[in-house]
Amino acid sequence: MAIQGVLRPGYVQLRVLDMEAALVHYRDRIGLDVMMTDDDGLVYLKAYDEFDHHSIILREAPETGMDFMGFKVASEEALDAFARSLRAAGVPVDEIPADEGRYLGRRIGFLAPTGHRFELFASMGRSNACPMIDNPELWHAEPRAMRAQRFDHCLLYGDDIDGTMDIFCRLLGFVLTEQVVAPDGTVIAAFLSCGMKAHDIALVRHEEKGKLHHVSFLLENWNDVGHAADIMSRYNMSVDIGPTRHGITRGQTIYFFDPSGNRNEVFAGGYTFYPDHPVRTWSTDEVGKAIFYYERALNDRFMTVVT
Amino acid sequence: MAIQGVLRPGYVQLRVLDMEAALVHYRDRIGLDVMMTDDDGLVYLKAYDEFDHHSIILREAPETGMDFMGFKVASEEALDAFARSLRAAGVPVDEIPADEGRYLGRRIGFLAPTGHRFELFASMGRSNACPMIDNPELWHAEPRAMRAQRFDHCLLYGDDIDGTMDIFCRLLGFVLTEQVVAPDGTVIAAFLSCGMKAHDIALVRHEEKGKLHHVSFLLENWNDVGHAADIMSRYNMSVDIGPTRHGITRGQTIYFFDPSGNRNEVFAGGYTFYPDHPVRTWSTDEVGKAIFYYERALNDRFMTVVT
Amino acid sequence: MAIQGVLRPGYVQLRVLDMEAALVHYRDRIGLDVMMTDDDGLVYLKAYDEFDHHSIILREAPETGMDFMGFKVASEEALDAFARSLRAAGVPVDEIPADEGRYLGRRIGFLAPTGHRFELFASMGRSNACPMIDNPELWHAEPRAMRAQRFDHCLLYGDDIDGTMDIFCRLLGFVLTEQVVAPDGTVIAAFLSCGMKAHDIALVRHEEKGKLHHVSFLLENWNDVGHAADIMSRYNMSVDIGPTRHGITRGQTIYFFDPSGNRNEVFAGGYTFYPDHPVRTWSTDEVGKAIFYYERALNDRFMTVVT
Amino acid sequence: MAIQGVLRPGYVQLRVLDMEAALVHYRDRIGLDVMMTDDDGLVYLKAYDEFDHHSIILREAPETGMDFMGFKVASEEALDAFARSLRAAGVPVDEIPADEGRYLGRRIGFLAPTGHRFELFASMGRSNACPMIDNPELWHAEPRAMRAQRFDHCLLYGDDIDGTMDIFCRLLGFVLTEQVVAPDGTVIAAFLSCGMKAHDIALVRHEEKGKLHHVSFLLENWNDVGHAADIMSRYNMSVDIGPTRHGITRGQTIYFFDPSGNRNEVFAGGYTFYPDHPVRTWSTDEVGKAIFYYERALNDRFMTVVT
Repeated sequence: MAIQGVLRPGYVQLRVLDMEAALVHYRDRIGLDVMMTDDDGLVYLKAYDEFDHHSIILREAPETGMDFMGFKVASEEALDAFARSLRAAGVPVDEIPADEGRYLGRRIGFLAPTGHRFELFASMGRSNACPMIDNPELWHAEPRAMRAQRFDHCLLYGDDIDGTMDIFCRLLGFVLTEQVVAPDGTVIAAFLSCGMKAHDIALVRHEEKGKLHHVSFLLENWNDVGHAADIMSRYNMSVDIGPTRHGITRGQTIYFFDPSGNRNEVFAGGYTFYPDHPVRTWSTDEVGKAIFYYERALNDRFMTVVT
Repeated sequence: MAIQGVLRPGYVQLRVLDMEAALVHYRDRIGLDVMMTDDDGLVYLKAYDEFDHHSIILREAPETGMDFMGFKVASEEALDAFARSLRAAGVPVDEIPADEGRYLGRRIGFLAPTGHRFELFASMGRSNACPMIDNPELWHAEPRAMRAQRFDHCLLYGDDIDGTMDIFCRLLGFVLTEQVVAPDGTVIAAFLSCGMKAHDIALVRHEEKGKLHHVSFLLENWNDVGHAADIMSRYNMSVDIGPTRHGITRGQTIYFFDPSGNRNEVFAGGYTFYPDHPVRTWSTDEVGKAIFYYERALNDRFMTVVT
Repeated sequence: MAIQGVLRPGYVQLRVLDMEAALVHYRDRIGLDVMMTDDDGLVYLKAYDEFDHHSIILREAPETGMDFMGFKVASEEALDAFARSLRAAGVPVDEIPADEGRYLGRRIGFLAPTGHRFELFASMGRSNACPMIDNPELWHAEPRAMRAQRFDHCLLYGDDIDGTMDIFCRLLGFVLTEQVVAPDGTVIAAFLSCGMKAHDIALVRHEEKGKLHHVSFLLENWNDVGHAADIMSRYNMSVDIGPTRHGITRGQTIYFFDPSGNRNEVFAGGYTFYPDHPVRTWSTDEVGKAIFYYERALNDRFMTVVT
Repeated sequence: MAIQGVLRPGYVQLRVLDMEAALVHYRDRIGLDVMMTDDDGLVYLKAYDEFDHHSIILREAPETGMDFMGFKVASEEALDAFARSLRAAGVPVDEIPADEGRYLGRRIGFLAPTGHRFELFASMGRSNACPMIDNPELWHAEPRAMRAQRFDHCLLYGDDIDGTMDIFCRLLGFVLTEQVVAPDGTVIAAFLSCGMKAHDIALVRHEEKGKLHHVSFLLENWNDVGHAADIMSRYNMSVDIGPTRHGITRGQTIYFFDPSGNRNEVFAGGYTFYPDHPVRTWSTDEVGKAIFYYERALNDRFMTVVT
């Protein structure tokens, strides 16, 4: 089979300060479905076009940010192979047994040099609310609110992004698709793909470890990006910037914040990537256009507000 | 690297009755760029968002149809491995040396049980008109006419689709994403992916060998599908059906004909496929909705007009 | 004030065979809001972007079709003036007193030569669900289902369309915007505007009197036309044709049927008309393109199925 | 006829510092067609969907800004009646004879209290490049560049906007559709319609007389607004703000500057206005949302940069 190894971002666990407010945000505004609340009060959600049981996990906590991000891999054998590769490279790997109550198969986890925890898993239970399979209609019911189709990627801020990139590219099979490079050759930002998307994870160099810049959801098109902006203003949600376009990936986008202050993105479009494509490179003097193609300048919030 | 083996459809060579009329169609209406005319009078074209030198080759000939379809593979090693696998399975493979004048590396070719010739190649020269790489703008110049982004896939008609499917799925690493199945279990139509697209090639069971149903081009969105329909009617082009949506793949689509009678498609959308997704299956009593989701019925042309 | 006399189509009363089924259709699929049910069981609905109390009235009856169509005029004085003009031209006019319970001011009514009843009114109560006025948000709540913005126009079939056109153009101030003319000069279809829309009412020559071809609702854009088509197929609603475009008016459209068999249209776009614009004329040999710009041919249903 | 008096904005004459640069901007980026250059070097342009000969006149001059704005009225009789009304109200009116070489009928002109010159005219020659009338196709050739459909309106800054509003509303038949009002009741901004558009001219209170805030062009939809933004960044045009939405009128918009510094707008959407609709009123504490619905804050440029 042509796509092997890591398939895609599978889930992300976020810390929110107030679960009720978070649910209004993720369920009623972004349009995710609540699949389950577990015994610890964690809430599991998914977008309407995802097959797996959940992709977003919310945990009420006194501090915001990301607990961990999980990637789905093609098979249990691939999972074992990644565990071996990581350990061979000196990366400590922990193993978490399958948890049927949470619809989740066994996982392996590791701490990346940027201070982020990543997990890999090969199986998750399928939801009843997943896309139809037999004579499938477009959807069960019309997508709601911002009509998010899937959890798409995260952008993470951390210090040793070279170290984390090395793990993803050399050990996990990701490919660098696009980068911002300083005049001295330092990579400031790196966009990595494990498939045909322009990015599945992105990293920005930053003095602190383990920071989350944003969690991103895919929309169908630019029309839905505008509709999402309408919803944000109608309900006075906190917006960072947009609607705009990224020069990097070409995605059409809005950044906004959940009620706890975690940044979200909804976006559409962006190019299809293939591994024979060249790396696209931006110089720091064009970084404004790289990040916000229409404004051609960064805003301070983009560089400094992380959780 | 996560995507291995066959990457994508790379080129298709079409026979047209009148080159001048064909160029008006493919260049001025669909919006492809003419890259080169070779010494034999073959014309090489590409869409604005493709890196490789060409994707459509037109050959003036007394009969319409497809000469061959070529798939790009990830490496020369992969090419060798596929040659070995095909030969090991009893499929005769020919080898064509690299042709610098045509910007094409060495190829291997084989005749599939449905009577279609396929080629595999690992390298093609990059065009000057390819997407930008350094501080890349969205495009060099605004996309023209129907604004086709890339050659996307072919739908082929033939008798022994089980045999051709077997080669693609067992030897070339394709995955069945969606199918139409008769009550007796016969697969009527099969949609195969080598990556994350809902299909890279599709096969329909048909009494004749080696037939072309359509060559498809990707558009950005439903808005551009409507714009393409405007162009078709403005210039009185021959339309088969659409704008409509496929139940299969969910693509938003129009079928139309080039001046020689070869069917084309322009489409947008469709789901993202991952190899852990289930196969979606349509029964023949719902085949109307499968093919044309809005009309919920096939038209005769769809089933009978092939080249 | 620049727009005087007749402002726009205000309401239409439709006969439906089964009110429950009709409500699923008009409320849950088209997305209208139910404003009131009166003592006679008539149900009053409106679209989310209309100020007046209602625009669609449903009456359960053993036969389908239209009871009457009402136009709003600019003032009570204009209403009196129209009553005088109609009577002076020999058109019998009846008067209906204001009905507060139905939020409706006094009306005048007349029977047109094509057998259709029309009413004129100058005042209607405003709904609580009307668009916001003070620091107005885009909408109270996100538009639902097909997201119809307003009742837009009717197309009516009748015998003496010259007579009805004469009343609308000479007495009510409508302007002919577009027409289909037979080789002998007979007008086959006429599109009339009372403002800047490409049509507020349209008439097609037909052997029977008093027939309804369709009631039309405005959508925001082509994207919503596609979304409406998705909904129609998802819920297996009866579709006539579309998504397509009209040559006449240039509107992007779908025709479909309510559960009783009354034809509806949802459409978007179309040109802005000004009274200094020339009349656009189609010959009968181009009538296919006039009606269905993409198909370039009429379907039988369009010409024969009326209620 | 229902629309009487003033029909619409007909033309605006702009001063540009460099005609060559201006033509690249208005012709190659916005997509207007150059209709004529007169003996004085003035260049006349129109959008593809306009019937009249021209709508934008460019004059090379050492200072930027607007020379005058002209409105088309319904008839020569209406023109005479407006001249009488203006004079009766003490507004000096000059008369300019018809100028066949410029395709323009006789005009009357007056200076408004805000220091802006306005003209009224009843006839202008029709262009060969106007929309088709007999069996009309959608367009002659595909709209180019930003695909502007028409010159739509101007926003003007001046001191005595009460005086200018009085002329437009009391003498010329315009209607106030929307306004921003300070706590003391002062109208800060007023949006006036002569037909069914949410505005045909807008006025903002400002210390200087005779200033131009922007000249606006209509696009088909939000998709074309995004496409216009792509063009602006691709060619490094000077952008003020957008893509965003106005709370006032609900239009989806981008503000940008021509090479001389005159502000332009391209926009789509906005509500349909009827004279029985209530005036919509914004308070100054919500003025951010009124002007830029997504940003919910004004930028300095919007309030201070005028030509």
